[in-house]
Amino acid sequence: MKNMDSTLRILVATDCHLGYLEKDEMRGFDSFDTFEEICSLAEKNKVDFLLLGGDLFHENKPSNSTLVKTIEILRRYCMNDRPVHFQVVSDQVASLQNRFGQVNYEDPNYNIGLPVFTIHGNYDDPTGVDNLSTNDILSAGNFVNYFGKTDLGCTGVGKVTIHPVLIRKGETHVALYGLGNIRDERLNRMLHEPHAVNWMRPEIQDETPASDDWFNIFVLHQKRTKGSSTDAVSELLLPRFLDLVIWGHEHECLIDPQEVPRMGFHITQPGSTISTSLANAEAKTKHVLLLEIKGMEYRPTKIPLQSVRPFEYAEVVLEDEVDVDPGDETTIHMHLHKVVSNLIEKSREKSARGSEPKLPLVRIKVDCNGLSTINSKQFGQKYLGKVANPQDILLFTRSGRRHQTTQERCNNSEELCPSDLNQHTVEAHIAKSNLEMQILPVDDLNSALNDFVKDDDKMAFHSCLHEKIEEARNKSLTTAPEDSTDKEPAWEKDPLSAFEQLKWPTTTGEQEAPDSDEEGIDSSDPEESDGSQQAGRKRRAAPCGGGRGGGGSVVSAGRRKTDLGLFQRVPAKDEDPDSAKKRRAPAAKGRYGAVIRRWPE
Amino acid sequence: MKNMDSTLRILVATDCHLGYLEKDEMRGFDSFDTFEEICSLAEKNKVDFLLLGGDLFHENKPSNSTLVKTIEILRRYCMNDRPVHFQVVSDQVASLQNRFGQVNYEDPNYNIGLPVFTIHGNYDDPTGVDNLSTNDILSAGNFVNYFGKTDLGCTGVGKVTIHPVLIRKGETHVALYGLGNIRDERLNRMLHEPHAVNWMRPEIQDETPASDDWFNIFVLHQKRTKGSSTDAVSELLLPRFLDLVIWGHEHECLIDPQEVPRMGFHITQPGSTISTSLANAEAKTKHVLLLEIKGMEYRPTKIPLQSVRPFEYAEVVLEDEVDVDPGDETTIHMHLHKVVSNLIEKSREKSARGSEPKLPLVRIKVDCNGLSTINSKQFGQKYLGKVANPQDILLFTRSGRRHQTTQERCNNSEELCPSDLNQHTVEAHIAKSNLEMQILPVDDLNSALNDFVKDDDKMAFHSCLHEKIEEARNKSLTTAPEDSTDKEPAWEKDPLSAFEQLKWPTTTGEQEAPDSDEEGIDSSDPEESDGSQQAGRKRRAAPCGGGRGGGGSVVSAGRRKTDLGLFQRVPAKDEDPDSAKKRRAPAAKGRYGAVIRRWPE
Repeated sequence: MKNMDSTLRILVATDCHLGYLEKDEMRGFDSFDTFEEICSLAEKNKVDFLLLGGDLFHENKPSNSTLVKTIEILRRYCMNDRPVHFQVVSDQVASLQNRFGQVNYEDPNYNIGLPVFTIHGNYDDPTGVDNLSTNDILSAGNFVNYFGKTDLGCTGVGKVTIHPVLIRKGETHVALYGLGNIRDERLNRMLHEPHAVNWMRPEIQDETPASDDWFNIFVLHQKRTKGSSTDAVSELLLPRFLDLVIWGHEHECLIDPQEVPRMGFHITQPGSTISTSLANAEAKTKHVLLLEIKGMEYRPTKIPLQSVRPFEYAEVVLEDEVDVDPGDETTIHMHLHKVVSNLIEKSREKSARGSEPKLPLVRIKVDCNGLSTINSKQFGQKYLGKVANPQDILLFTRSGRRHQTTQERCNNSEELCPSDLNQHTVEAHIAKSNLEMQILPVDDLNSALNDFVKDDDKMAFHSCLHEKIEEARNKSLTTAPEDSTDKEPAWEKDPLSAFEQLKWPTTTGEQEAPDSDEEGIDSSDPEESDGSQQAGRKRRAAPCGGGRGGGGSVVSAGRRKTDLGLFQRVPAKDEDPDSAKKRRAPAAKGRYGAVIRRWPE
Repeated sequence: MKNMDSTLRILVATDCHLGYLEKDEMRGFDSFDTFEEICSLAEKNKVDFLLLGGDLFHENKPSNSTLVKTIEILRRYCMNDRPVHFQVVSDQVASLQNRFGQVNYEDPNYNIGLPVFTIHGNYDDPTGVDNLSTNDILSAGNFVNYFGKTDLGCTGVGKVTIHPVLIRKGETHVALYGLGNIRDERLNRMLHEPHAVNWMRPEIQDETPASDDWFNIFVLHQKRTKGSSTDAVSELLLPRFLDLVIWGHEHECLIDPQEVPRMGFHITQPGSTISTSLANAEAKTKHVLLLEIKGMEYRPTKIPLQSVRPFEYAEVVLEDEVDVDPGDETTIHMHLHKVVSNLIEKSREKSARGSEPKLPLVRIKVDCNGLSTINSKQFGQKYLGKVANPQDILLFTRSGRRHQTTQERCNNSEELCPSDLNQHTVEAHIAKSNLEMQILPVDDLNSALNDFVKDDDKMAFHSCLHEKIEEARNKSLTTAPEDSTDKEPAWEKDPLSAFEQLKWPTTTGEQEAPDSDEEGIDSSDPEESDGSQQAGRKRRAAPCGGGRGGGGSVVSAGRRKTDLGLFQRVPAKDEDPDSAKKRRAPAAKGRYGAVIRRWPE
């Protein structure tokens, strides 16, 4: 029997923000143009599936227009006769969020040639009593496979169990873990708490390889930090059995997979496919990632997006410019017009090859410390028909500090994700007022407030209060007796103090630091500059008998292996410190190109 | 070749109002329960398709929850292998509102066993720059065939061309005309204006029968009147070539088809499938209609819905009740409690056969003229867990007129459709203020206001103004010179008076009364009480050659006859008065059961 193709091909994109500025006459179609390009790239590259990292929609309740356009694009590209060559061998009910209990291309009533897998982001997050997001609409309509959805409710810290979608193509086995956006602070806290996040891993069975022979991908949508800030997620908190982490939410394109030292996995941050803020980080070329996985090796190929509206960014410190006379506003005007013209010219040159380029976005951040500012709207009048955002080309700052660090810049008025800012403000405000909530945790109220304001969920406070009380009642009835010798439920005796017991630790200093004592890390293989080495091969692929050669054949509808027994819980890190020892870093440090060495070209 | 089954079976329902009171813990699922029952009735009765008369949704922008539930129901019932036995032989692009240009069951990528055809109502009407309704979402997702959609824009009276969906099953030919809701005043005006509503009729071709041999159905969603009120549509304004009119929007179930004297067609008003107001008309048993059409004959079978929440209604005039002492509030309490108890008991008896009946809705309209009223919420406390609407059982009126006519009752505070009331109020308010708009027609502004308020269409005024100016400019540039000997565009000379020329006639007295001189009406065949006569047979079915016997065979995907040439415009009534002469009334007066006589039972 001929050995089937064992290379799983995935196109990865994230943060498409469909419907962004949909009422803008010029930019209204941008998000759809690019999503269509992504779908056509998936088709052109004959990928097995399209994987999205959240924020497919810019709103939790997108307009009818956005929904219709999105569905039309998905229908045009996903519905066709092309055979699907991979199988989902895990329990689909556990890992997929739909009531039909199966991956979309297995529904015998649909011809799906391009399956789409997606998690939700912070813009298209599930809300309301039913905990539904726009992705659920697409999932109900069988257009996407929505995974990584959790229902934490308003419980204390909450628990989440992540069931991977187990994918087999020929002799390649991929475990696809997904986690849709959870409020950053909360997930941060959960990742610090033992057993709050349970990672299910495939068990060894006759026909499936051992846990170690699955290529483990994790898709998440969170604010990313390398440090210890509590309103973001540190990559150091992720489990070491992962091989590749796909990080959504961050709009900056850092798509080349980077090794995380001593963690045993690489991270790719594809970045958004549309600029939703006029910040420097969004001015980089936008990309999607073609990911080819064979056995335990993978090859990343980044593909620049052609349909993205050009965006040119510059920073100007007026004091430093020689042709600016602080006493003469005209010179400021002239200088800024010169900068804008140069940026427009630069954009034109870049897109000279393409036909009918879109008008560019132009943003100049002007440090005008001490000097008079200019009316930005008037200034932009001259660029009507020349740039896509004439009304807000100029952004004035009065920092007075010319040489900011990158971190300081991030803290400026302009953030990559406006929602982060809002979230931060609300929390900061409560913290500043030094509120000490005795009955309900601040974070839960905060979350409810967020749902109420952002998602128009009128029942947010009601559900929060209700669940909180229920939970407290249950906890005090069941767990309290174990904790104390007193058999009478704490709740009955003193509801207030029972509530207080449920409060989370409020300072991060109390939280356990991530396990950092690493052993057995093999960071050898220094020939990182050579593109043909073996460093990318961390572990041998599971031995595959010839009799299983045909296993990756064309998927026939109706076949489905629903096997909950395939999963076993991953021991928490502090339970089994040895697990880290068995791991080897996937490659020596270096360019991502060096990760995969023995790929047939 | 065996003659195929030529009976087209349609299940007709309207005003399902999916999502009505979705946040109500008790009643939130009612609309979905009944829609599911309707779909299951369609399945059970093996109909060819389900036909909906608008207001499938209760909102233009339903919640994610409502959309997901609706799609799940449609997917469960519509997606299957059951062969579809009828063909759509008209130009599908002209009659169906989707970008895929075909009826949903012909898409080779979908297995659709139960096609759904729907028009929009006034709740789920298209809005916004893209003129999209929730039905467009379902249509894009290939769940329904959305027809009868018009884009009148903000032009004066507007024109609409109604292309029928031409359906063939064996030797039965049905032309399905649809018109989604248009503001009643506007449609009223259009129907009075010559050429404003164009009805396309099938042309004679080799394989298709002559116009007269099509069974013509018209589905609309408007306020219905038999009189001449301008904010409703009179059945007398509809064209006489129609055979059956399906009237949506009116929630009262008048589902038995009624002959309209001298108009040559019957009307069925199925009524809503859920009570959205606690008015007497909604207390009747809700039904859907099974419509079987064979050649030029049809057989209506009404099917009562089992899942509808029971609703008991009573009217009480306190002055007339012997056990009420006007000076003693306790006697009023006692009397009303007695009435409620009786209604609950009545409801229980009715639903005794079914298991787990839903708690009933109970409404008592109390004429308390001169007597003190009771706190309705306090009164209802006693019925928590016994009725579904304890908070608003009682409705007090102070009309003082005990013996109202039906018409007067309708004009009371409680209307069947709250939106009508609102619409009326806005218009009445403007009329009362005696505003004379010189530049923009009141109705267009009104329509824009409606879109702005009801559908949250922020661009409503902008588009209205924009289009109005464009239109005025065009009209003055093109038509004005023809009307006057002066070749200079009126717009250039005097924009204000040019606008004034565009204003509509504001009094209905100027409008042409519907043509009422009828000739050639054959109302013979008086044996109306016998159920086996021929009165229902108005015209002979077109002769069908044996060679075409197989025409109605199983539909195979990919086959489609797109033939715009099939249509010809129907001459306006006043153009061709003879057209009425050729028509015969479908049956002598009598019960609808007498309409179809020669049906094989």
